[in-house]
This record gives sequence, structure tokens and C-alpha cells, in this order.
Amino acid sequence: MANRPFDVLNEAIGKEVLVILKGEISVRGTLKAFDVHMNILLENAEELRNGELKTKFGKLMIRGDNILFVSP
Amino acid sequence: MANRPFDVLNEAIGKEVLVILKGEISVRGTLKAFDVHMNILLENAEELRNGELKTKFGKLMIRGDNILFVSP
Amino acid sequence: MANRPFDVLNEAIGKEVLVILKGEISVRGTLKAFDVHMNILLENAEELRNGELKTKFGKLMIRGDNILFVSP
Amino acid sequence: MANRPFDVLNEAIGKEVLVILKGEISVRGTLKAFDVHMNILLENAEELRNGELKTKFGKLMIRGDNILFVSP
Amino acid sequence: MANRPFDVLNEAIGKEVLVILKGEISVRGTLKAFDVHMNILLENAEELRNGELKTKFGKLMIRGDNILFVSP
Amino acid sequence: MANRPFDVLNEAIGKEVLVILKGEISVRGTLKAFDVHMNILLENAEELRNGELKTKFGKLMIRGDNILFVSP
Amino acid sequence: MANRPFDVLNEAIGKEVLVILKGEISVRGTLKAFDVHMNILLENAEELRNGELKTKFGKLMIRGDNILFVSP
Repeated sequence: MANRPFDVLNEAIGKEVLVILKGEISVRGTLKAFDVHMNILLENAEELRNGELKTKFGKLMIRGDNILFVSP
Repeated sequence: MANRPFDVLNEAIGKEVLVILKGEISVRGTLKAFDVHMNILLENAEELRNGELKTKFGKLMIRGDNILFVSP
Repeated sequence: MANRPFDVLNEAIGKEVLVILKGEISVRGTLKAFDVHMNILLENAEELRNGELKTKFGKLMIRGDNILFVSP
Repeated sequence: MANRPFDVLNEAIGKEVLVILKGEISVRGTLKAFDVHMNILLENAEELRNGELKTKFGKLMIRGDNILFVSP
Repeated sequence: MANRPFDVLNEAIGKEVLVILKGEISVRGTLKAFDVHMNILLENAEELRNGELKTKFGKLMIRGDNILFVSP
Repeated sequence: MANRPFDVLNEAIGKEVLVILKGEISVRGTLKAFDVHMNILLENAEELRNGELKTKFGKLMIRGDNILFVSP
Repeated sequence: MANRPFDVLNEAIGKEVLVILKGEISVRGTLKAFDVHMNILLENAEELRNGELKTKFGKLMIRGDNILFVSP
């Protein structure tokens, strides 16, 4: 069982995660890295606005203070 | 009697909690972990918007600065 | 006479307080705990929106950065 | 002459002050205490919205980050 | 020549300054004190909203995080 | 593989990056420098609003707290 | 080549810079000083709203947290 919320990110390195941001933006991709500010680096990322694919990115860094939820 | 507000989270580990966010979003699930920033990890989480079920998540990390209330 | 604003919270432990949040939300309940971030734990809390009872909670933790006023 | 802005609060302890908040809310009352975060404790406080009396409080703690102006 | 932005405030002590806030609020008055958070104490202050005189204050403390510009 | 999100910026020095800001603003240019606050210096930068070129800058410093995404 | 974003400000001391703020406000003037919070002191500053000259200032201190871009 995870003891700290960030442990779930550590276990998800190399796997697909869904990052839901403030506003109706979400991003799905492979988790490559994160830091204590919840800044997140994804590979093969897809940005969704209102559930529709908007843009694909080979690599995408997300600034942590925009984040609402992260789901592995 | 709890002496610090976070004690109520500590006592709720493994139990169901309701997390009410800024805006009309709330999340219900089993509390697995939390940290000093009020980042929270839930299992079997249900996201509710205006009281209606929107999405189910096996695991969901909530960034603490979005939180309004937590109720065990 | 209180010398620091938080002294008034310390004196109100175990008593009813009214917490008024940013936006038209307020919460009334018995003050059980607080911390330096103004996070507050209430028991037998009633959430009011525009002055009308919305929800009752056995225990409710309020994240401090939402708070406008606290009145003992 | 005051050398730091907070000196004006120190001199106003026990006297009436007007606290103007972000938004059209202001509060008038007797200054009992303040801290470095500009959290303020008033006695016999009157909350004004758009200049009209809304509520009276025996004691009222104001969270500092809501404050726009304080006038002794 | 000033080497740090705050030097311009230091040189303006005892003189009139214009403080322009976020939103359409500005305040003109004699600078009495300031601190590292840009909290500012004015004397004989005039609050202007959309360029029109709204209120006069003998002493007015401005919380720094509301400030957009200060001009000596 | 990058171990920290900022590593992707380090690898992108001297190359073109896309910086997407909160709101519908984005900037494309050659990454010259960045710091721990995610402040970013671009050369030959093009500011896009709603996808259309608005302004070109020889050098442009972006304050980090405006950033949503950075993509190399 | 600059190694830190702030180096571009250091090189611009005594020269004209354009400061673009959050919202449709920008300021053009001679850079006299800056600090680690990105607070900026300009001389002979012109404030532009929606691209039109609004006000001229002999000296103008800009609080750093309002800043979106700085271009030398």
C-alpha cells in the first residue's frame, strides 16, 4: 500500500497516466518523470479539450500547479 | 479528540472519505495516502460534478491546492 | 486580551464557530482543531450556501486558504 | 513617524480600524490583534457589503490574504 | 542610479507616490513606510476608482500583493 | 531516459521549443536558458494567440508561473 | 550565450525593454533595476493598454508577479 500520494507516481513510471488539469483540459501519455512540485514529463502525450483530441506531442512537460488529478 | 486537523485524515486511512473541491467537483473514495500539502490518494474513486457521477478511477491522486473540504 | 489572532481560535476549541469562506459559502460547527495554515476541523458541521443549509457533516476539515472570516 | 507599515497596526491596537477587502466587502471594528500574515482580530465588528451593514460579530478573525487596505 | 527596484521607494519616503493596483483602483498619497512584501503605508491618501476620487484616508496601509505599479 | 522533468529542458537548449501558457497564448522559439522557477529565455520567438502569429521577438523572457506546457 | 533567463535583464540595464503583463497591459521604458522577484524599475515608461498609450511615467516600479513576458 502506498504511504505517500507521490508513491503512486513512482510506481507509474513507464506506464500510461491521465493528467486532468484545472479547466476542461486533460492529457494522456507515458509517465517519464515527475518532481516534488508535481511537474510531470510525458511521452507520446495527447492533449484533450472537452474530451476531444486536440494535439499530440512527442514529449510534454506539464507545470504542476495546473494539475487537478493524476490517475495511473 | 484530534488536536490537529490532519489527525482526522490519519484516522481515515483505509476508509471512505468525501473530498469537495473548489468549483462544483467532489470525489468519493477510499483514502490511501495524504501528505502535508493535502495531496490525497484515493482508491475506487468516483468523481461527481454537480452531484452526478462523471468518472470512476481505480486510483486517483488529488492535488491539495484544489481542496475546499474533506469529510471522513 | 488576545495578542495574536489565532488565540481566539485556541479559546474557541470545543465551542461553536462560524467559518465564512470566499464565495457565498459558510460553515457552522464545533471547533475541534486548527493549525498554522488555518486548516480547521469542525464536528457537527452545517454547510450553508447563500444562507441556506446545504449539507450536514459529522466531521469536516476545511482547507485554510479558502477562509475569509472566522467568528467564535 | 512609522518606519514599517505594520507599525500603524501596532499603534491602532484597541482603536477602531477599517479593513477593506478584495471585492466590495469591508469590515469596521476594534483592532485586538494582528500577525505577520496580516491576519487581523477585531471586536464589535460590522461587515459592510457595498457600503451597507450586513452582519455584526462580537469577535471576527480576518484571514490576511483577503485584505486590500487597512486604515486606522 | 538605483540598483534595486526598492531603492526608488526608499528615495520617495516623505514624498507623494501613485500606487496602481490590479483592477481599476489607484491610490495617491505621501509614502511613509514600506516593507519587503511591498506593503505600503501612505498618509493623506486618496483612493481613485476609474480615475475618480472615491475616499480620502488619513493613513492607509496597502497590502503588497494587490500592487501592479508604484510611481514616485 | 530523463529522471526529472527539467532534464527535458536541459536537452532542448539551442533547439526549438513550444511553450503553451495559461489562456490561449503560446510561444515558439529557440530555448536559450531556463531556471528552477521555469522562467524561460527564447530567441527568435513567435507569440501565437489562438494559433495566429501575433508578434515576433528577438529575445523573449517568459515568467514561469504563466506556463501550462513546454514541448521540445 | 546567456545561461540564466535573468542574464538577459542584466545585459539590458540602461536600454529599452518591453514588459508585457497579464491582461492587455504592456509597458515600454528604460530598464534601471530588477530583482529576483522580477520586480522591475523603468525610467521614461509608457503604459500601453490594448496597444494605445495610456500614461507616461518618469519612473515606474512594476511588481514582478504581474509579468508575462519581458523582451529586451
